[in-house]
Amino acid sequence: MTFQGDFTFDRAVAVDRRAGADGSRVVFDAMVNPGWDIMGNANGGYLLAIVGRALSVATGRPDCVTSTTHYLAPCPAEPVVIEVDVVRSGRRFATATASMRLAESGREIVRTMATLGDLANDPGGPTLMFEQSPALVDGSSFPRFEDSVVVGGSTVNDFAHLHQFLGTRLDPRVARFREGIKSGEPVMRGWFEFKDDRPIDSLALMLAADAFPPAVFNLDLPAAWVPTVEMTVHVRAVPAPGPIACEFTTRFVQNGLLEEDGTLWDSAGTLVAQSRQLALAPRG
Amino acid sequence: MTFQGDFTFDRAVAVDRRAGADGSRVVFDAMVNPGWDIMGNANGGYLLAIVGRALSVATGRPDCVTSTTHYLAPCPAEPVVIEVDVVRSGRRFATATASMRLAESGREIVRTMATLGDLANDPGGPTLMFEQSPALVDGSSFPRFEDSVVVGGSTVNDFAHLHQFLGTRLDPRVARFREGIKSGEPVMRGWFEFKDDRPIDSLALMLAADAFPPAVFNLDLPAAWVPTVEMTVHVRAVPAPGPIACEFTTRFVQNGLLEEDGTLWDSAGTLVAQSRQLALAPRG
Repeated sequence: MTFQGDFTFDRAVAVDRRAGADGSRVVFDAMVNPGWDIMGNANGGYLLAIVGRALSVATGRPDCVTSTTHYLAPCPAEPVVIEVDVVRSGRRFATATASMRLAESGREIVRTMATLGDLANDPGGPTLMFEQSPALVDGSSFPRFEDSVVVGGSTVNDFAHLHQFLGTRLDPRVARFREGIKSGEPVMRGWFEFKDDRPIDSLALMLAADAFPPAVFNLDLPAAWVPTVEMTVHVRAVPAPGPIACEFTTRFVQNGLLEEDGTLWDSAGTLVAQSRQLALAPRG
Repeated sequence: MTFQGDFTFDRAVAVDRRAGADGSRVVFDAMVNPGWDIMGNANGGYLLAIVGRALSVATGRPDCVTSTTHYLAPCPAEPVVIEVDVVRSGRRFATATASMRLAESGREIVRTMATLGDLANDPGGPTLMFEQSPALVDGSSFPRFEDSVVVGGSTVNDFAHLHQFLGTRLDPRVARFREGIKSGEPVMRGWFEFKDDRPIDSLALMLAADAFPPAVFNLDLPAAWVPTVEMTVHVRAVPAPGPIACEFTTRFVQNGLLEEDGTLWDSAGTLVAQSRQLALAPRG
């Protein structure tokens, strides 16, 4: 159930369950690995993936069907302790909360609440889709994988270090913000995959939901940190093999707060995740 | 700060803080009032408003800027106990978790995580809006308040009892699902207000986010319960006086899971809330 191969991502999200149990609480040790950061602070999706792995192990469920994370403090590359409290364990779903703290100082980094399940073996139900994957729509503005530009390998690598492990690719039309040419449209779209071809499972989707540059980097705002207050990820299906088509949009920057919505599709055209985060607008 | 007048809603969400404090934990007694239910189970937005009131009192902040609630069990009209744990109390925001249980059986009903603030006195920041209130767009399909039909006063009142307290109004074009005539479009839109003209504050927005019939009632699916697994509400501003223009849409019913997105606007055209819930598709 807990996918583990000799891949960078799996080593970076490994959790070590402590022996002994205190009722419904399970405690894990983990290491926030260096290199998964932006300007020295671990990426929010990467932290969520560590917590997601702990939640999966504690509840015995492979998929964080819905998870919400509140980001409390920036996170250096340090040992952390994750406490998981199982709230309810039902037939179809289990609900749990998790708290990640720096092992040394005790400072809390993230608090997560999630409902987990087993999507591949879920009882399922009706399907009625009102949009399809933009990557499969003829004449869509979504870029082909081979026409997209790798995020890493540019100046982005100098501060968004996590892309060294990813094959994140951007639509060339939205990627020119890196040279200071902003599209004026708050959209980032492109493809997510791992550089070492690690298969993309539901845990990797939690990383993908926060791995792209903020959509508002294409607006006339400072290209500065966009601190996430809260991020919710709905994992809607286990992905088929291949890269994930991702689109992130912001509609409302209002009084310094903004939302960013993500829609993620697999190569078969299945909706695999939706995300929404509330973040602070960048300040110069 | 905690808005309290002689209004039905305020009486229905009243919380009574227990004396004494155990570190960062604050305990409240409350009563899930009769009449705020759908088919005997308290409405999810109403439960969220009770929890929201407790979160506000415990943290001393008026607005649940972002809250996520996982619904664990249906709730009868009974006394409840709400435990709030303050996770972090910063200058701009406070983060807290809350758990609501039935006082008698101890059964947990909802678990909520929220970050609260004071939007009217927030430091603010840039505003760049890419959509405006559909109610203020010339030629928009959004109905005028006076052309909309009151949800209560119809057969809906026989099972969605909470509308007896609300002035919820629906676009006539989406309201015919009540006579079995479905638009085929997963959209509900209309207006939210209280029947007794109670002013709409951020707490009332949490109710409004879950007070409309599910958007999928306009699809060819059974008109049965749509159980919410998780709902996140972002309160983006304190509303100006007047009814709230609300639009709820579902894009993806996939394998028995669906999301419903809400966008709520005040009479001045300010975005006051966004919501997204993950729910189970109705079954016959």
